[in-house]
Amino acid sequence: MPATLPALEDHVDVLIVGAGPAGLMLANWLSRFDIKTRIVDKRGTKIFNGQADGLQSRTLEILDSFDFVDRVWRESNHMIEICLWNPDENGKIRRSDRIPDTIPGISRFQQVVLHQGRIERFFLDSIKEHSDIAVERGVLPTAFEFDDAKAADFAAYPITVTVRTLSEEDAMPQQQQQHHKNDDGQEAPVSDGLFRSNLAADDTDDLIRAAETNARINQAESIKAKFVVGCDGAHSWVRRQLGYKLEGDSTDYIWGVLDIIPITDFPDIRQRCAIHSASAGSVMVIPRENKLVRLYIQLQATEHGQNGGKVDRSGITPEIILRSAQQILHPYKLDYSYCDWWTAYQIGQRVGNCFSLKERVFLAGDAVHTHSPKAGQGMNVSMQDTYNLGWKLAHVVKGYSDASILKTYETERKQIAQELIAFDHRFSRLFSGRPAKDVMDEEGISMSEFKAAFEKGNEFASGIAVNYSSSVIIAKQSDAKVQSNQVIGKQQLATGIVVGKRMPSVKVLNQSDARPWHLQELLKSNGRWRIIVFPGQLATRTNMQRMQELGAKLGAQDSFIRRYTPLEQSFDSVIEILTVHAGSRKDVELLDLPEAFHPFDNKIGWDYWKVYADDQSYHEGHGQAYANYGIDSAQGASIIVRPDQYPYRLSSL
Amino acid sequence: MPATLPALEDHVDVLIVGAGPAGLMLANWLSRFDIKTRIVDKRGTKIFNGQADGLQSRTLEILDSFDFVDRVWRESNHMIEICLWNPDENGKIRRSDRIPDTIPGISRFQQVVLHQGRIERFFLDSIKEHSDIAVERGVLPTAFEFDDAKAADFAAYPITVTVRTLSEEDAMPQQQQQHHKNDDGQEAPVSDGLFRSNLAADDTDDLIRAAETNARINQAESIKAKFVVGCDGAHSWVRRQLGYKLEGDSTDYIWGVLDIIPITDFPDIRQRCAIHSASAGSVMVIPRENKLVRLYIQLQATEHGQNGGKVDRSGITPEIILRSAQQILHPYKLDYSYCDWWTAYQIGQRVGNCFSLKERVFLAGDAVHTHSPKAGQGMNVSMQDTYNLGWKLAHVVKGYSDASILKTYETERKQIAQELIAFDHRFSRLFSGRPAKDVMDEEGISMSEFKAAFEKGNEFASGIAVNYSSSVIIAKQSDAKVQSNQVIGKQQLATGIVVGKRMPSVKVLNQSDARPWHLQELLKSNGRWRIIVFPGQLATRTNMQRMQELGAKLGAQDSFIRRYTPLEQSFDSVIEILTVHAGSRKDVELLDLPEAFHPFDNKIGWDYWKVYADDQSYHEGHGQAYANYGIDSAQGASIIVRPDQYPYRLSSL
Repeated sequence: MPATLPALEDHVDVLIVGAGPAGLMLANWLSRFDIKTRIVDKRGTKIFNGQADGLQSRTLEILDSFDFVDRVWRESNHMIEICLWNPDENGKIRRSDRIPDTIPGISRFQQVVLHQGRIERFFLDSIKEHSDIAVERGVLPTAFEFDDAKAADFAAYPITVTVRTLSEEDAMPQQQQQHHKNDDGQEAPVSDGLFRSNLAADDTDDLIRAAETNARINQAESIKAKFVVGCDGAHSWVRRQLGYKLEGDSTDYIWGVLDIIPITDFPDIRQRCAIHSASAGSVMVIPRENKLVRLYIQLQATEHGQNGGKVDRSGITPEIILRSAQQILHPYKLDYSYCDWWTAYQIGQRVGNCFSLKERVFLAGDAVHTHSPKAGQGMNVSMQDTYNLGWKLAHVVKGYSDASILKTYETERKQIAQELIAFDHRFSRLFSGRPAKDVMDEEGISMSEFKAAFEKGNEFASGIAVNYSSSVIIAKQSDAKVQSNQVIGKQQLATGIVVGKRMPSVKVLNQSDARPWHLQELLKSNGRWRIIVFPGQLATRTNMQRMQELGAKLGAQDSFIRRYTPLEQSFDSVIEILTVHAGSRKDVELLDLPEAFHPFDNKIGWDYWKVYADDQSYHEGHGQAYANYGIDSAQGASIIVRPDQYPYRLSSL
Repeated sequence: MPATLPALEDHVDVLIVGAGPAGLMLANWLSRFDIKTRIVDKRGTKIFNGQADGLQSRTLEILDSFDFVDRVWRESNHMIEICLWNPDENGKIRRSDRIPDTIPGISRFQQVVLHQGRIERFFLDSIKEHSDIAVERGVLPTAFEFDDAKAADFAAYPITVTVRTLSEEDAMPQQQQQHHKNDDGQEAPVSDGLFRSNLAADDTDDLIRAAETNARINQAESIKAKFVVGCDGAHSWVRRQLGYKLEGDSTDYIWGVLDIIPITDFPDIRQRCAIHSASAGSVMVIPRENKLVRLYIQLQATEHGQNGGKVDRSGITPEIILRSAQQILHPYKLDYSYCDWWTAYQIGQRVGNCFSLKERVFLAGDAVHTHSPKAGQGMNVSMQDTYNLGWKLAHVVKGYSDASILKTYETERKQIAQELIAFDHRFSRLFSGRPAKDVMDEEGISMSEFKAAFEKGNEFASGIAVNYSSSVIIAKQSDAKVQSNQVIGKQQLATGIVVGKRMPSVKVLNQSDARPWHLQELLKSNGRWRIIVFPGQLATRTNMQRMQELGAKLGAQDSFIRRYTPLEQSFDSVIEILTVHAGSRKDVELLDLPEAFHPFDNKIGWDYWKVYADDQSYHEGHGQAYANYGIDSAQGASIIVRPDQYPYRLSSL
């Protein structure tokens, strides 16, 4: 990788522009395949504090599929309970409700909070462990060409991006904002907290000018790419090259953010809280790791002070933001000695009109959806964009798949972006509105309506609710009509599994060593499609007979598995077969099953990690897989699962 | 730390000789205190494969208290089920029993297996994170002096150890033993697998001679120490300086060890198995991480070939060991292409006659107990030796404790060593003996007796059964007589907690954020004593009243907590108070409890991590702490817990 001394021209399979969460997720996915990838970022350093922090249950499942969720789980603050605070009849705030933060049972992970910089660190470590891809920082794209004639040829490099290396000085944003109050309680001088806020102007053009006038290290490099993915944020340079737009609007609501170690008598400071004061505005409390608490604080004074369009930034300081919080939390006291980060933003929702140029250039993350940060969605939806895209790109580059699967990126992710924006639009207005004094107060917000929106939002916010529409890689039951009498999409075969929604997880026991695993832990993100066979009770002769026949078919020299798998690769390298049988481990011997279910290798013998039992464990209970998945243990079922853990179709055996 | 260019003289609080598991555990403990520690090892490198691998539940609890058990849990192979295989009436081996490997409910961790080199890596990372202690490798102690006149003065340095640095060549053992069989099935040339086996001679004297004749880098350094701990193995140089002995005997039983990726049709190769063949000897199967399996294989041919005393090593090769295994496993086939490590050893049991010289020099690990490896005990008991010793040394060095606590090292750990040796003596004979053909076969081993020993062994092998005797830091109920009518040792106050046995763990909810924690997770190894207050239901006025009085007493300027805590240190730095109240989190507000239970700090506000509830969690059930600990929620109790998680005494409130 020419990270330090770039050649004048390079050819890559994928060029990623932007090394935030979306870009890093993509680089991480691609690190699992042997395809040439480069990732550049105009910033000279990674971030150290502030920014996004919320991680959905679904995001944690994805990070687990890349083998590093344990680092997140350990360092993060776990969000367990939400408290709603409203004004009582005297206008004093009081706790009105407690609700669980993550809906119980929805996932094996609960929502957690951890600073974006740590997530990025874990991605970087994971990328390094699996590849020689390295983030090239302080590298700015300055020119873009697209050769339309090559767009349909997937061996060709239709895109040319010119990049230039910034001087260290230009590439370093002033991001250090931590400050302690002086002993007299006055603020120590602080730097600008708004440099990445949506109240700040885009600095890309300034950086390009700086690069062009910097003769010393400013060597232009021309990168020819099969694919380019713009993960370069709300001011996306890639989006600008394509001429695409973010569509939507802004509100007048301005919110400040403080990451502080609070000194307070407010009793729920270590809970997630939504606090509506009678007339001073609202606060969201997000307890963080390392004793920090993030406060989202509505800034009423600033709203009144603005005169259309962008707000005057100069009036916003940590002291002003704190004062607003103190008014909202009154009569409780709030102060701090240590502030880790602060910013402010104007609430708005926008979504990209187009996510791709001919399935060769893609946009992801903030480049195609921006909204208010309070719902803890931004970083998650951004990472999930490229989690959706990564394996598709890789499979097309490797020749495993037809390029038509790339169209599903826009159909699947634009739907999610629109749902997100709609949710945030409604939610942020409910949050920023004044609580209704009584049922006659029509301008006020009903607190019961707010609570209902909050609870509904929780399901959305888990990321588990995502339900992709029918496509070449989502075969829902309703499609069966179109596809004549093929045995696909039989949703009733597994009533607990929804084609289009990620595979739910329950514990199963490894047949060979009795160890319990969450089924999802077996669905690692390594690019493989999977057939999960649920053969039912194997003690039943007919089920065993059916399993023998299936094994013979799958293992045959002309089986579709061998057809899709390059000759030099192992049997399970493109499509892996997993089995979960009903009933006791003790009644089944692994070696009685056909080889297709536990492939043999001359050097390492049988594969002991493919067959599982839906059985009682010694230490961790019974997963009840058949019951939870709604599969009849007499009839069985098989499920084809995409490399990103979404069931593609259900079939009978 | 003078790791590279040693001064001619140095003064240290603690000098550790030997950087195996016992030495590293001790260095790791001491890294949590600010005391001057050096650790030297005569070997030039850490180990990369082979050696010990079994980790008990109790060891995992300890590693969790140092914050890195997650790395072990993730990489290790989990041992879930044991299968016993015996000859049937025709002499063919068959599976006779399945039993759980770790007794269900005994710990939140089950026994796992992971290569010693990884454990050592985790210790090194942990030590580095908390201190500037660095293992000095290739550094050999060559002279020892003890100034008896200074033995009682704990400010003095009574011990002088001279150390010399070995040349790289001398310090590097030939430990690379991995080999693949050639394509014709013949062994590739392999190096000597026995260099650290008890069949090999002690090489310390050779190394000392090498050091003395190596003029180039051989600068002698004189280290003056308050304490020296010999963690330098079965051939302990420190033990030799003290003139102490290992007492015990050897057997005629020789066993080989193979770490291989097996190619086999033996159905339980991924289970822990104890296999007795009719007349070809026994095999223990230990499935390992990375598809490896460790086989302990009885070598009958070699036994017959020996002529008293040490066995002829030259006859032992991986091929010979494999052939024995094939005979024992017949009619199942066994072969391998890849061998990671191999060795052989002669079964024997020995225990040190003395563990300490005047509580200034201590011996730990293999220096005071050696036995056969099959029970998976050695590395565990060795680490637990220094886990017992570390905090005591640190507290005496720091002046927190009277030196009398150091005497408990020998009383506590010699008892364990003797139990271990007795267990291994019995167990290894049962394992190496020929199975009885029938009840009349008096020379044969009864397989039901073996099974009973195995099951009993499992409790011992978990490390949870350890029960320390009464001492200045273990106040059992029976001691109450001696200590008149003081309210100590009231075992009936908490029938589920045994003074002398490690504090059992159940889940409790953090009062401030509802997060469930295993109580043991709150007992981090940071050197603090802890008072765990179980005040019962705080909704009851009398219980709350009692809590107020207790808080006032503990928080008072003349409380024993402040008396034991240096003035400049925080209130909880030597003795920490944790509270677990009965009943609902929702009925209690943290700030209604006295400050002693949630200390205030000017810079960071209240402490939200001291008070817990025995309540239902949203996602992880109900820990039933009062019920499990056998504490009456009307009466309550308080438990003083040592820094190593052992309850010191129970009291009423």
